[in-house]
Amino acid sequence: MKKLIKGLREFKSSYFSTHQELFEQLSHGQKPRVLFITCSDSRLDPNLITQAQVGELFVIRNAGNIIPPYGATNGGEGATIEYAVEALGIQQIIVCGHSHCGAMKGLMKLQGLREDLPLVYDWLKYAEATRRLVLDHYSHYQSEELLEIMIAENVLTQIENLRTYPVIHSKLYHGQLKIYAWVYQIESGEVLAYDPDKHAYVLPQSQLTESDTEDPILNQFPNCDMAIRSPHNQGVASENFPIPHLSPEQRERIYRGSNHSN
Amino acid sequence: MKKLIKGLREFKSSYFSTHQELFEQLSHGQKPRVLFITCSDSRLDPNLITQAQVGELFVIRNAGNIIPPYGATNGGEGATIEYAVEALGIQQIIVCGHSHCGAMKGLMKLQGLREDLPLVYDWLKYAEATRRLVLDHYSHYQSEELLEIMIAENVLTQIENLRTYPVIHSKLYHGQLKIYAWVYQIESGEVLAYDPDKHAYVLPQSQLTESDTEDPILNQFPNCDMAIRSPHNQGVASENFPIPHLSPEQRERIYRGSNHSN
Amino acid sequence: MKKLIKGLREFKSSYFSTHQELFEQLSHGQKPRVLFITCSDSRLDPNLITQAQVGELFVIRNAGNIIPPYGATNGGEGATIEYAVEALGIQQIIVCGHSHCGAMKGLMKLQGLREDLPLVYDWLKYAEATRRLVLDHYSHYQSEELLEIMIAENVLTQIENLRTYPVIHSKLYHGQLKIYAWVYQIESGEVLAYDPDKHAYVLPQSQLTESDTEDPILNQFPNCDMAIRSPHNQGVASENFPIPHLSPEQRERIYRGSNHSN
Amino acid sequence: MKKLIKGLREFKSSYFSTHQELFEQLSHGQKPRVLFITCSDSRLDPNLITQAQVGELFVIRNAGNIIPPYGATNGGEGATIEYAVEALGIQQIIVCGHSHCGAMKGLMKLQGLREDLPLVYDWLKYAEATRRLVLDHYSHYQSEELLEIMIAENVLTQIENLRTYPVIHSKLYHGQLKIYAWVYQIESGEVLAYDPDKHAYVLPQSQLTESDTEDPILNQFPNCDMAIRSPHNQGVASENFPIPHLSPEQRERIYRGSNHSN
Repeated sequence: MKKLIKGLREFKSSYFSTHQELFEQLSHGQKPRVLFITCSDSRLDPNLITQAQVGELFVIRNAGNIIPPYGATNGGEGATIEYAVEALGIQQIIVCGHSHCGAMKGLMKLQGLREDLPLVYDWLKYAEATRRLVLDHYSHYQSEELLEIMIAENVLTQIENLRTYPVIHSKLYHGQLKIYAWVYQIESGEVLAYDPDKHAYVLPQSQLTESDTEDPILNQFPNCDMAIRSPHNQGVASENFPIPHLSPEQRERIYRGSNHSN
Repeated sequence: MKKLIKGLREFKSSYFSTHQELFEQLSHGQKPRVLFITCSDSRLDPNLITQAQVGELFVIRNAGNIIPPYGATNGGEGATIEYAVEALGIQQIIVCGHSHCGAMKGLMKLQGLREDLPLVYDWLKYAEATRRLVLDHYSHYQSEELLEIMIAENVLTQIENLRTYPVIHSKLYHGQLKIYAWVYQIESGEVLAYDPDKHAYVLPQSQLTESDTEDPILNQFPNCDMAIRSPHNQGVASENFPIPHLSPEQRERIYRGSNHSN
Repeated sequence: MKKLIKGLREFKSSYFSTHQELFEQLSHGQKPRVLFITCSDSRLDPNLITQAQVGELFVIRNAGNIIPPYGATNGGEGATIEYAVEALGIQQIIVCGHSHCGAMKGLMKLQGLREDLPLVYDWLKYAEATRRLVLDHYSHYQSEELLEIMIAENVLTQIENLRTYPVIHSKLYHGQLKIYAWVYQIESGEVLAYDPDKHAYVLPQSQLTESDTEDPILNQFPNCDMAIRSPHNQGVASENFPIPHLSPEQRERIYRGSNHSN
Repeated sequence: MKKLIKGLREFKSSYFSTHQELFEQLSHGQKPRVLFITCSDSRLDPNLITQAQVGELFVIRNAGNIIPPYGATNGGEGATIEYAVEALGIQQIIVCGHSHCGAMKGLMKLQGLREDLPLVYDWLKYAEATRRLVLDHYSHYQSEELLEIMIAENVLTQIENLRTYPVIHSKLYHGQLKIYAWVYQIESGEVLAYDPDKHAYVLPQSQLTESDTEDPILNQFPNCDMAIRSPHNQGVASENFPIPHLSPEQRERIYRGSNHSN
């Protein structure tokens, strides 16, 4: 606590004093362009990893970056989403999971939480679709890989939940809203973004270089229909994520996108 | 979005590459010392204002830094608190409001939200105790001052709500948990911390210099019972927060603590 | 039933006929000074144990004298509290538990209730903070003593829940409301009252004799902030309630206060 | 408060000391025969008006003696009913309203409560069936009479709500439970009991004298199906309660039963 209080003073004398004008301006109102929904995990700092300035990211954080479906509960998630999209007019939402997520580890051994962490147990109900999908389709994977799959799938689950909110539903319909699925890798410092065309998580940088338009990602996802997955429907299993038919090496190459990285 | 994706690359090549060891270590587990509960507002970056490193702050963010009382809902707040305190063993909680809070502005004109922002309207029910207290006791204040009072009082309301959680209740009982009330001022870059002895928000720095012990704040607040206020019971109106009997200038001096600042 | 109907006639011909003026007056309106919240238990009659006259006590009774936190449910407790404090202007609240409480016994073997008494099981969720605290800190006590501790702690838990109600929050803030914690002992006919300064349950009579003012108890508890406990924070274990470091005999003497009685 | 504390001492030295054996016995367990559900009103003391001894009445009290239908909420009413009937084996339930009931007055001007008493407003939702019935069928009555009708009808409404609880439903089916509707008149000290055969509230004493059996009321109501009202179905309008076709004088005679009283 002493350290944090010292940090407050340090912030004021360094960052704040060199950005005083920005803060003065911000005191008259915020105009964030992005709603960033992520986990409470201390190892993930949204502003740090995106190098976003103060005022740019409107942030929701809870255990597991979970969004209960509309009507399921009256927690802060729905209200904050409504405020972001309706009152602030935000048009871009990022749901960002991360490697080594404690909530997703909990989801893998759910029954064990019932006694000791009853509220977490109840909360993970809203990630049950993730658990079920992974149980049904990825049971041949082992613990670490299974966790990675769970993390990546859960981001997509939560985006489906997000789509159940009236305000989201309506704005998506009119193309006034884009939703992005990210997974942050603590150990590599990289973010992977879900590519709905490839049905795979890819480096967002690789997407960026393919285009020079003002906002290439937006152009790339004209419908931004994140729910278009269910890869097996489409007979293009080799491009699906996660890729159950590939060897771990192949999967590694595609999922981690490691050979694209600098 | 393009900017954020560029930021990701920048983060990796700059901050991440110079802190690679830290991230490697963090990938094996987090040990945050503080649960930081604050607003989703884009102008408030917890890690920036406290200069905390990655791995130090476990963060809950929603509109208005609101904690529904235990059992009131099944949103992420309760589960995340339980995970922080029970699974991670965090022993310090900061609830941090901020100036110009949109949620608190909403609370001041609650009926107007019913139609357009129904989820926000429902959510603000958990700040009704704040609204009621301010209506009952501060009706002679005008809009800007009233908003400040609401913001400061709401942090204390939410701490009372926090105390209804079984895990919080139990840990507080045996002194295994400390709770702090902060308000961040966007325009000045300062944080004010509630001092339960003085019944006032003061500069936490001023508290720090009074002592040299390892964790002086903890020692200064042996009970750290944030709910100990009800100032008017005590016949010490001059020390009360907010200070209804003082002139705005006097109030400014004490509440903002501006002339104590460095 | 026959007996009760005979009782009705007896009441009319005896008590009612000698207090006709009082009842005539009461038919024009009630002005109770105290809201008495207690258990449904048939062995506890609030008017009898306080010798209060008709018209003096506004009474809430349910299994376990439990108050769900604000917003947690829409049962009668919140509405009745609001009516008492806001509409009737009551300024004193007593939460009164009692020895041998069946609801608290249920709390000790909670899982066993799930099947047979599902509504009781759900209801005891609002005493979970009691259960948790006792499990965490009093596991070395045996059944009967543990039950006593649970009963006494639950009264304090419920007072914390009570504090989350907007109308309570606001009135407490300005000293317009006092809350008292009582435990009634069926076998001894005694009531013990929580003393926030001593962090112990004591005989309320002993408090009364220390002062001669009009309402000595009110003066003795200027803050009457029942939530001020967390005894172990304060290094005064010998005054704590319940007293884990004392022998059962010592504890008996202090807790029961039996040798202080007249 | 001083007076109550003196009352505690008085109770112990008088009533308790002369009934010490009873209390000693009760400390081993309660065996109440009746669940008495009534209003929190300070002017109604269940034990006093029935002259019941300690240990005889298991009591639920809230504003308006209201029982939310099963599943409608998770307040104390349902749990306490379940405990009474299932755990304690109680076989008789009395729902007792009373004249000049503040909750019923609130029901008559419901919209006015929305702002100032929001929890009471929400709570009265469970008496909406009463309000609707009275609005639909008794709109030609004026304020005082209308209030009386509302009070009497509300007891019957709440008994219908009571019948929705699984445990009540099942016990009623097998004749293991009897439910009685009472209205207590503060100014006369009398109780009127609903007579399902006559569709009217009558003096329970008058019922008692008609029979010499051990428990004549039980015999008189073989089905004790309190919900058998909807008097107009039965072509016996002249005996219905409330009696819309009679003059106020006639109604007075029957409803109040005043000329039958001793």
